[in-house]
Amino acid sequence: MDRRSLLASMLAAALPASSVVSARAQAAALPSWQEGPAKASIMEFVARVTRPNSPDFVLADERIAVFDNDGTLWCEQPIYSQLAFALDQVKLLAPAHPEWQTQEPFKSVLANDLAGVVRSGEQGIFEIMTVTHAGMATDEFDRAVMAWTRTARHPRYHRGYTELVFQPMLELLEFLRQSDFKIFVVSGGGIDFMRPWMQAVYGIPPERVVGSSGMAKYVVGADGRPALIKDSKIDFVDDGPGKPVGIHKFIGRRPIFAFGNSDGDLQMLQWTAAGSGARFMGIVHHTDADREYAYDRNSSVGKLDKAWDEAMKERWIVVDMKQDWKVVFPS
Amino acid sequence: MDRRSLLASMLAAALPASSVVSARAQAAALPSWQEGPAKASIMEFVARVTRPNSPDFVLADERIAVFDNDGTLWCEQPIYSQLAFALDQVKLLAPAHPEWQTQEPFKSVLANDLAGVVRSGEQGIFEIMTVTHAGMATDEFDRAVMAWTRTARHPRYHRGYTELVFQPMLELLEFLRQSDFKIFVVSGGGIDFMRPWMQAVYGIPPERVVGSSGMAKYVVGADGRPALIKDSKIDFVDDGPGKPVGIHKFIGRRPIFAFGNSDGDLQMLQWTAAGSGARFMGIVHHTDADREYAYDRNSSVGKLDKAWDEAMKERWIVVDMKQDWKVVFPS
Repeated sequence: MDRRSLLASMLAAALPASSVVSARAQAAALPSWQEGPAKASIMEFVARVTRPNSPDFVLADERIAVFDNDGTLWCEQPIYSQLAFALDQVKLLAPAHPEWQTQEPFKSVLANDLAGVVRSGEQGIFEIMTVTHAGMATDEFDRAVMAWTRTARHPRYHRGYTELVFQPMLELLEFLRQSDFKIFVVSGGGIDFMRPWMQAVYGIPPERVVGSSGMAKYVVGADGRPALIKDSKIDFVDDGPGKPVGIHKFIGRRPIFAFGNSDGDLQMLQWTAAGSGARFMGIVHHTDADREYAYDRNSSVGKLDKAWDEAMKERWIVVDMKQDWKVVFPS
Repeated sequence: MDRRSLLASMLAAALPASSVVSARAQAAALPSWQEGPAKASIMEFVARVTRPNSPDFVLADERIAVFDNDGTLWCEQPIYSQLAFALDQVKLLAPAHPEWQTQEPFKSVLANDLAGVVRSGEQGIFEIMTVTHAGMATDEFDRAVMAWTRTARHPRYHRGYTELVFQPMLELLEFLRQSDFKIFVVSGGGIDFMRPWMQAVYGIPPERVVGSSGMAKYVVGADGRPALIKDSKIDFVDDGPGKPVGIHKFIGRRPIFAFGNSDGDLQMLQWTAAGSGARFMGIVHHTDADREYAYDRNSSVGKLDKAWDEAMKERWIVVDMKQDWKVVFPS
């Protein structure tokens, strides 16, 4: 070891690990993002809050970042993946329910008639969610979700749903993680539907997933073994004004970084923006019908209207999927 | 640098950081615990799940430890600290409420008549909790809690309540942290009452505190600033069978290590015990009237009866405060 490399390694050992990682991360970060204002504003924000001498420096422990899931981290078209899961579960459970052959909304589900399912309205969707998401132990539901992620295929891409995550956003998660952010998903989706696979797909552990939930009940079986049984009663809806409530309830402090893609994220972005110090608010705008989908103000899934206006007014960062992303999905 | 120390340092660099820390932690761990079966079983369990070659090895990411708070991490006598906070808040708010001078339960609170407060029953306690815990913004409540922790003094010890934490348990938290456990508080106490001070006192950040909660509502003021307003409606009671529900809801996986002190912790301990692989279930038994308090089966606060029987039957670890702890509070 020569003197110079000895000195360099001593210096590296004396620096906090995060500074070393941060400098390394900075150089190679976000390779799937085009050079442009969106990438630049992310890089600039992270540098501002992580450089020890920066006036906007934030302690690692307080670097809370929150991400919506549907349409922000993975594809939400043509229908929410959780609804696709529920429809597939109905088919799986159908042999034990011969009455479903003639009874709506199940008849439409079994006939692959999505328009019929939509015609069954909120009540129909609620019935589908109830038979597929309630009445079983949490462990059993976990296994059903994992089995589905392994076998189900998206109708357009013919790939597993958990492969239809946005490569540039995976890189953003990794960049924030290397910059010592604590990353949480804050989604309107079901918390029990998301947790089983998010560690493997996003590197986000169950305790950092916030979502909507049904009630659960603790019961001890005749064999003395306890279980948590999922109930059809709604416990918490983590959407719209529910998102800041969910952030307060599950995280207990205000994020400094938030990313969403629809009006359901408006209040989460507002709540993040209203804190003191440096803040980052980002929105994914789906502009790419060729590689993914193009939708905003008039979409029934992932409508982006009020949050779009607020983003313009408040100069939040809007990511143009077509312009800003070199690739959409992992290869 | 001679050849041997070079090799030693290369070896240390090649080992995962946690093994190095773990070995160091092991030697100096739990200095306020008497040598005896309780300390030995803690040390043995942590070694079993952290030694890479152990058949019971658990990945760091899955080392979830949960602790009750009242009576497990801090003193809960003669009344729960959160109730002491509420009574003090009533006095602070009284000048704006002249009617409280003649109106129960407030009249008894203002007269320091604890028996009178108790006579007001559940309804009285609910009214006290409502006026002190609801109707304000979450930020404002935070500040009230922090001000109280700085000024309030325990009637017996004349020390701040957050100084009346159990020194041996602080050491246990530190030992588990150094062994790469993820530590959560799972308490029947109010989540908003605990989070403001637990980072400084226990080293446990807000997102790892699970507790009871009231509803909160997101509102945007006339000035455009959003706030979360605390409501008197109960959202979640994190006690008894609520604890496994809270663990599932907030943490999303089953702990491998759980510590409590009362029947309110029974289901949390059962839920922990029922998982597969190595498990640790511990109970603090308050046996020390001289240094702290002595109570169990017949106590109105922190009753330890059914959980005691189950601990005997299932051979959970029962810590005898008088025998097992060299000191109770930090000096």
